[in-house]
Amino acid sequence: MTFGIDDLPVRDELRGKSPYGAPQLDVPVRLNTNENPYPLPEALVERITERVRAAARDLNRYPDRDAVELRTRLAEYLTKTTGHPLDTGDVWAANGSNEVIQQLLQTFGGPGRTAIGFEPSYSMHGLIARGTGTGWISGPRHADFTIDVPAAERALAEHRPDVVFITTPNNPTGNAVPAETVLALYEAAQAAKPSMVVVDEAYVEFSHGASLLPLLAGRPHLVISRTMSKAFGAAGLRLGYLAAHPAVVDAVQLVRLPYHLSAVTQATALAALEHTDTLLKYVEQLKTERDRLVAELRAIGYEVTESDANFVQFGRFADSHEAWRKILDRGVLVRDNGVPGWLRVTAGTPEENDAFLDAVREVKKEQNT
Amino acid sequence: MTFGIDDLPVRDELRGKSPYGAPQLDVPVRLNTNENPYPLPEALVERITERVRAAARDLNRYPDRDAVELRTRLAEYLTKTTGHPLDTGDVWAANGSNEVIQQLLQTFGGPGRTAIGFEPSYSMHGLIARGTGTGWISGPRHADFTIDVPAAERALAEHRPDVVFITTPNNPTGNAVPAETVLALYEAAQAAKPSMVVVDEAYVEFSHGASLLPLLAGRPHLVISRTMSKAFGAAGLRLGYLAAHPAVVDAVQLVRLPYHLSAVTQATALAALEHTDTLLKYVEQLKTERDRLVAELRAIGYEVTESDANFVQFGRFADSHEAWRKILDRGVLVRDNGVPGWLRVTAGTPEENDAFLDAVREVKKEQNT
Repeated sequence: MTFGIDDLPVRDELRGKSPYGAPQLDVPVRLNTNENPYPLPEALVERITERVRAAARDLNRYPDRDAVELRTRLAEYLTKTTGHPLDTGDVWAANGSNEVIQQLLQTFGGPGRTAIGFEPSYSMHGLIARGTGTGWISGPRHADFTIDVPAAERALAEHRPDVVFITTPNNPTGNAVPAETVLALYEAAQAAKPSMVVVDEAYVEFSHGASLLPLLAGRPHLVISRTMSKAFGAAGLRLGYLAAHPAVVDAVQLVRLPYHLSAVTQATALAALEHTDTLLKYVEQLKTERDRLVAELRAIGYEVTESDANFVQFGRFADSHEAWRKILDRGVLVRDNGVPGWLRVTAGTPEENDAFLDAVREVKKEQNT
Repeated sequence: MTFGIDDLPVRDELRGKSPYGAPQLDVPVRLNTNENPYPLPEALVERITERVRAAARDLNRYPDRDAVELRTRLAEYLTKTTGHPLDTGDVWAANGSNEVIQQLLQTFGGPGRTAIGFEPSYSMHGLIARGTGTGWISGPRHADFTIDVPAAERALAEHRPDVVFITTPNNPTGNAVPAETVLALYEAAQAAKPSMVVVDEAYVEFSHGASLLPLLAGRPHLVISRTMSKAFGAAGLRLGYLAAHPAVVDAVQLVRLPYHLSAVTQATALAALEHTDTLLKYVEQLKTERDRLVAELRAIGYEVTESDANFVQFGRFADSHEAWRKILDRGVLVRDNGVPGWLRVTAGTPEENDAFLDAVREVKKEQNT
């Protein structure tokens, strides 16, 4: 017998678990992790190179622990794109929105406390809850994947969670959550217990509607979390951020690891923020392609969940894993998020989406014969 | 009244706390955070630039989640410098050794479990324990800051901690822990409970003696943690790593945030690892300067703790904070780590060290008059 994880004194709740993550397969068309298919423009690559060269000359020194310049530029980006005025002190940044969420749970969740999400949703919320010792409550949704507000309100009243996650647009289903729903859940959460409501807007730039950021006004228990992985086409950068009352930003600094954001990460993110206008043009292309995927999938005969993201949930399949495998056999990798009957496809380039549509057309024909 | 942290539903144990971190002051000579004073050589800056340019072209994609190339190069570096053969699967990397330690505590510590350190030592061990819900036990040292082995063994038998931290060379005191002490504590820890022993070797490249890495053979509950911040002169990079049994590396992957290490971090670290021979030459210069600091401080009349690190603990002061301030008034920033009677100075360039020695000579004269 080889010595393995179970021979180590790991925490009981980790026994028998596998690491999170989509299979990384070498396939011609990869539409499984909601990456932006457009490489950064060459001018931005050069700007990153310049900024990193400057940062590298000072790499023997610790980075700016508070990432002040970066947070200032992020606040400006949010102000410009949402019309809601934000300042450096309203924004916090970390290594991916996963680390933002981890810091929030270390601050407001943790042992003896609970968090709720309305599932299916971004599964890392529950996994990071587990990793921080926070109890996890799986809240309800309607069969069409919209949030069942009365049922959600009852769940909040019953469980009195310390942290409430609302993902909009939701992942993996793609649908946006209306502002009224978020407001109703915020009120219900506050009535049950003074708890933090985290609105995860990782995909909001792809939405037909507006960001919920302006709801921050007068709501100090509300947090909006964001990422540069999707709209900024920078999944490899690992830069997540949040906007909230400055007291929330102060509070997460009690648990953040000192100097958590490297000088090269800060330099690269600052370069990307100089090119938002170009990057947001790719977002427009991807929205068009996303809408085309929705239309074509429906024309082929699939059910499709309304999408405000850069991905589309489609089905339904008697055996979604088998369907996933059949699409993969045709050289296209999509994602089986474990939602029975459904799969998720990321909007890629027009060519990638054509390849995907050809594949699912064939799978559909096979199904019908 | 302004709305502040205490108006938020933060965890009780965070109330009234301040964020960790040395004061960041604008002073001519900064010898307070154990940074390497030598900027990276220009050839390495160019190599980082090249590698980051290539990474930036693929930045729309997630980074290698398992950082395989980086871990392979780190394993080669450890094998070459310690003679102990290691492979990719024996090594794990994260954003600074702080994140390595956080992942270890999430895996082997956490709610209902405890960790011990022998204090004074690296204060982040206790702070990260708190952040992960792990109970913290402050273990004993002799008055000369060596570990009191019989007392430590009694503490292990009494508290039966799940994780044991041993920092060597120790921070902030500077002294190395003999291999026999580590072996005795490993045995005592295993006798009390099958617990993990984490040897934090952040400063080991500056040591007169050898790394304890070869002790890994046959000890699957032993972990050696390392960093590129000090010997590699790359504090701004935030790259920490560990060497351990492959089962430990598998286990921390159950709690690591997916894609935690950005593509630019991996690219920059890989570039630095191509230049280890040059970087280790700076280490030799710093060791010489460190030894000079020890000798000169003693000649001036200070007590100095034996140092195997790139810093020196000196004293004793009736009021160490007042002494810190007097040195600062002379343009030199050292560190008051809260060890009563002692201060810590980082070995800088010869010129920086001269400025420091001039300052403490004056302070000593004032003291004597």
